[in-house]
Amino acid sequence: MTTHSALRVSPRQTSFARIPNHIGVIPDGNRRWAALRGMDKGDGYAYGVQPGFLLYQRLLEYGVREATFYGFTKDNNKRPPRQRSAFTEACVQAVAELANRDANLLVIGNTRSPAFPKELLPYANRRVSFGKGSINVNFLVNYDWLWDLHCARRTGRLASHLIPRVDLLVRWGGRCRLSGFLPVQSVYADIYVIDEYWPDFQPGHLDAALQYYSTCDVTLGG
Amino acid sequence: MTTHSALRVSPRQTSFARIPNHIGVIPDGNRRWAALRGMDKGDGYAYGVQPGFLLYQRLLEYGVREATFYGFTKDNNKRPPRQRSAFTEACVQAVAELANRDANLLVIGNTRSPAFPKELLPYANRRVSFGKGSINVNFLVNYDWLWDLHCARRTGRLASHLIPRVDLLVRWGGRCRLSGFLPVQSVYADIYVIDEYWPDFQPGHLDAALQYYSTCDVTLGG
Repeated sequence: MTTHSALRVSPRQTSFARIPNHIGVIPDGNRRWAALRGMDKGDGYAYGVQPGFLLYQRLLEYGVREATFYGFTKDNNKRPPRQRSAFTEACVQAVAELANRDANLLVIGNTRSPAFPKELLPYANRRVSFGKGSINVNFLVNYDWLWDLHCARRTGRLASHLIPRVDLLVRWGGRCRLSGFLPVQSVYADIYVIDEYWPDFQPGHLDAALQYYSTCDVTLGG
Repeated sequence: MTTHSALRVSPRQTSFARIPNHIGVIPDGNRRWAALRGMDKGDGYAYGVQPGFLLYQRLLEYGVREATFYGFTKDNNKRPPRQRSAFTEACVQAVAELANRDANLLVIGNTRSPAFPKELLPYANRRVSFGKGSINVNFLVNYDWLWDLHCARRTGRLASHLIPRVDLLVRWGGRCRLSGFLPVQSVYADIYVIDEYWPDFQPGHLDAALQYYSTCDVTLGG
């Protein structure tokens, strides 16, 4: 973590008292965003890819060392086929594009299910580094919290054991809930909810979340 | 659940579109409340018992069928001895008083640790009914999320398996985090945060939380 990109700013130059090591990202609201515009709900996911790169760039600038994006879940697979194709394609596109940038990539999800996109198998359950490896970027793809916990029962460790504790969990789309996002790693996470839908991401959203986090005392339940 | 106390109001008579089956309660802020008043931090816990009964009464009136109170945790045991005595005593007092009322009581926590108050052993890991049994009231006492999950690894079920899914989690004291509260049962819970410290509980806080819950769509991650 001693490398610096031209755009990277030392955390000391930011106005935040503390920068979380690991941020969880729940990019919710794609379907509501699309419906508001008279589009098919599933069409919203394609508009959720570019915001992820804006956020990624901002995380790099602020020196955040790890981020986990909630791609899609086993629960999400109950949705209509058109939506399933759309969110799967958005995940594949996001990971493929990130593979050309500066990140240590990791995809966690149940690869034994046909819902897992085969394009992402090279990154599944192992970390693959690109560029200077300035940040760990994890995607939960066909993730299932119960599968994650059952893996721990069977093998003694979570399927997601390569992902550390989440310090700050930021959710777009106004809902204040985990929706099964890494239940073990999130036990102590501070949660910040942004009302705007994910495709309307603005860098200021992250700033607001980091400002909030700076006011939280970290007690780890103590 | 067909019994009715004189004070019980049918949910149909309330203004809420939906009443959650199971509410989780994180009564945080006792120490900050005490410190604000120049008291020893630990003295705040004693002021947190009566608010619990005000809330319990309101839950009965609204027909809520189950509530789980976050008593204290293994993490909390790192605090100074005076605080430990105070929160343990508050839990014992709350359960003892509730045993004279109308509730199916259950205490979940690690009874093999000396931090578990022996006065609560009769209610530990089994439900004991009082009065008409109109509501299930659970207390997490010397609870430890990791102990809960490890129990599942060892035995195939959570130590807290008698506690069902949490629909709405209400936390007092302004912080938006689970702090290890029932990680499995809370995966889909809608979280509502009240800024006031727990000893300043007002029935209107519950109303606000229920109003919020009425606006949430329950998708269970789907």
